[in-house]
Amino acid sequence: MLRASVSGTVIKSSLIEPDGGVLVDARVPESERGSKTLEAELLPKVSLAKIDVEWVHVISEGWASPLKGFMRENEYLQSLHFNSLRMENGTVVNMSLPIVLAIDDETKERIGSSKDVGLVGPEGDLLAILRSIEIYKHNKEERITRTWGTTAPGLPYVDEFITSSRKLAPRNEFDRRRADAVFAFQLRNPVHNGHALLMNDTRRRLLEMGYKNPILLLHPLGGFTKADDVPLGVRMEQHCKVLEDGVLDHETTIVAIFPSPMHYAGPTEVQWHAKARVNAGANFYIVGRDPAGMGHPTEKRDLYDPDHGKKVLSMAPGLEKLNILPFRVAAYDTVAKKMAFFDPSRSKEFLFISGTKMRTYARNGENPPDGFMCPGGWEVLVKYYERSVTEETTSAAASA
Amino acid sequence: MLRASVSGTVIKSSLIEPDGGVLVDARVPESERGSKTLEAELLPKVSLAKIDVEWVHVISEGWASPLKGFMRENEYLQSLHFNSLRMENGTVVNMSLPIVLAIDDETKERIGSSKDVGLVGPEGDLLAILRSIEIYKHNKEERITRTWGTTAPGLPYVDEFITSSRKLAPRNEFDRRRADAVFAFQLRNPVHNGHALLMNDTRRRLLEMGYKNPILLLHPLGGFTKADDVPLGVRMEQHCKVLEDGVLDHETTIVAIFPSPMHYAGPTEVQWHAKARVNAGANFYIVGRDPAGMGHPTEKRDLYDPDHGKKVLSMAPGLEKLNILPFRVAAYDTVAKKMAFFDPSRSKEFLFISGTKMRTYARNGENPPDGFMCPGGWEVLVKYYERSVTEETTSAAASA
Repeated sequence: MLRASVSGTVIKSSLIEPDGGVLVDARVPESERGSKTLEAELLPKVSLAKIDVEWVHVISEGWASPLKGFMRENEYLQSLHFNSLRMENGTVVNMSLPIVLAIDDETKERIGSSKDVGLVGPEGDLLAILRSIEIYKHNKEERITRTWGTTAPGLPYVDEFITSSRKLAPRNEFDRRRADAVFAFQLRNPVHNGHALLMNDTRRRLLEMGYKNPILLLHPLGGFTKADDVPLGVRMEQHCKVLEDGVLDHETTIVAIFPSPMHYAGPTEVQWHAKARVNAGANFYIVGRDPAGMGHPTEKRDLYDPDHGKKVLSMAPGLEKLNILPFRVAAYDTVAKKMAFFDPSRSKEFLFISGTKMRTYARNGENPPDGFMCPGGWEVLVKYYERSVTEETTSAAASA
Repeated sequence: MLRASVSGTVIKSSLIEPDGGVLVDARVPESERGSKTLEAELLPKVSLAKIDVEWVHVISEGWASPLKGFMRENEYLQSLHFNSLRMENGTVVNMSLPIVLAIDDETKERIGSSKDVGLVGPEGDLLAILRSIEIYKHNKEERITRTWGTTAPGLPYVDEFITSSRKLAPRNEFDRRRADAVFAFQLRNPVHNGHALLMNDTRRRLLEMGYKNPILLLHPLGGFTKADDVPLGVRMEQHCKVLEDGVLDHETTIVAIFPSPMHYAGPTEVQWHAKARVNAGANFYIVGRDPAGMGHPTEKRDLYDPDHGKKVLSMAPGLEKLNILPFRVAAYDTVAKKMAFFDPSRSKEFLFISGTKMRTYARNGENPPDGFMCPGGWEVLVKYYERSVTEETTSAAASA
């Protein structure tokens, strides 16, 4: 693996220069781009896959702060074993996922003894300079088992990237809106009215606690997701409709994209999701059942205990100052005909609509029960699945 | 898994009562044993395997302090994910290995809703009472992968206990000898002169640092070891000879048994080894190449990077006050005809004698080079292997 300080890095092909802290908008001034590019062109090159570019994006925006580049070995080991990093001043910061740049032997040879390298994106464009690099061994088996707690085949991130953007700047926006509390909602799915109920109820609770202007950070994940998840573009369109339809309040909601790739690593990943939102300025974090979890890839069960995510998060080193707001389960109330907090005393009157079930409705052009999702948002999903089916048919016809 | 406070527990069938802290010698007074036994007889029983008794032993002597019993789920999760526990007052203590009591469904049913249970040893004797128990799910796959970083078959502890004593009180002894520094040496092998060189050299360095009376805690592991390791009894006999022959100094050495079972879990386990010795009163800990490591069970390589153990140990949360003394590699100097610190400038004159090689010598009745081990100690090993061969032959003849 290769680790270094990100010295220049790119969003939409524009070089940005870290200032040692939060990097949003700290772009390399126009006047210096020429000289940086010139320097990079003389260095040995490392070709980045799309996933690596996602991580450069994550690092350069400060989501992984205090990391200023890919992990050195001492950071990698602390991440694997302790889910946290100890800083020189003794403070502990949470860091549960290894953020590393894997290289092959050929690249290693090409780098030789050079201390700096140029990073080249999939399109061949120079993205960044890594300085003072360190190369160390990548024990994939150990990384996988310690991060995911399983070696079953079928882990999406592992299968895609180990064994084988858009950008918003929510932080300044919080100040502009004079937020006195920021509560973050991580999601990688369309927003239904159960989610909305939860977010609106959280805002109510924060007002009750005495906050005057709590702001919701609606924070869809923008990096890698597995094939059957709804793509980011479609989700963003859906989120816009939810705001347009007034399900969430425009004035007190900021929609931004969290550029991280998805690991589906359950209790390990939920720490990363929360930690990055602390870096974004959030002080409250909503956590639900089985965060960042999925079904076991080879067995008929959840990969992680659905309660472990919130338990681990509440005890995680380096996250002591983040207020964890545990999810109250919402389901469709067939009597009230809307999404409501589940009431166990009349459990038979509630309907649980899973992500899979929701996708099946949309794919078959069926409507979910009234009040499950705002009509505008639902239409976005139906159209997406219609397009997918047409494309599949067209492609099948073309190859026939 | 079942977790509880150890309320009474036994060493050699004597009930001991924890006092909420270090438990050595905190035996149940003779006068209370009758009533404790009477109480235990009325409780649902949990049968312990030999490995469970080893852990009861470990817990009751305080090696795992602040644990007073098997882990509750919140402790188990912290151990798996953070290798440490956060205490109520905010301090962090290292705790890298899960210490749990696995039970089967039948036992769970037998316990029913009882809050207390009696622990019964393999001989059928009542060993302890566990109070205020908590039963939670044992996800073996996750425990194994997060602890060992692999799922390869052939991990001794896993194969023996998951997918299927003697006692000394070194702590009081340190005071009696007026130690102003205690340096611990963990071992599960016979002591050769390379080990002795290292321990004697460590003492010299501590004296140079200004300590007046550094005491060596020679601390063989007494719990489970894999089949081809030398058994504890033989090792203890060998260690006695090493002291008798003057290779280590009687006056400044304490030999005691560390009752823990061996996990062969490398960087995860070395933290446990060090942490338990902090509980014993050690303030210096000698760590070598690949501590608690072994060959990969199914691949031709070390299971762990040989340097990761000492790196992880030096960064481990909750061990900040322990002084880590990295091992200097000793090898047989064929010119000086003795064990000496390896000098890379004349590497061809050094001979590395591995544990496997040592055992092969002893098994074949060959002598290792002069100066490798004191003659008295070597004789113990040769006799042990002679006996093993005789027993194998006898048993083969009997079954023929």
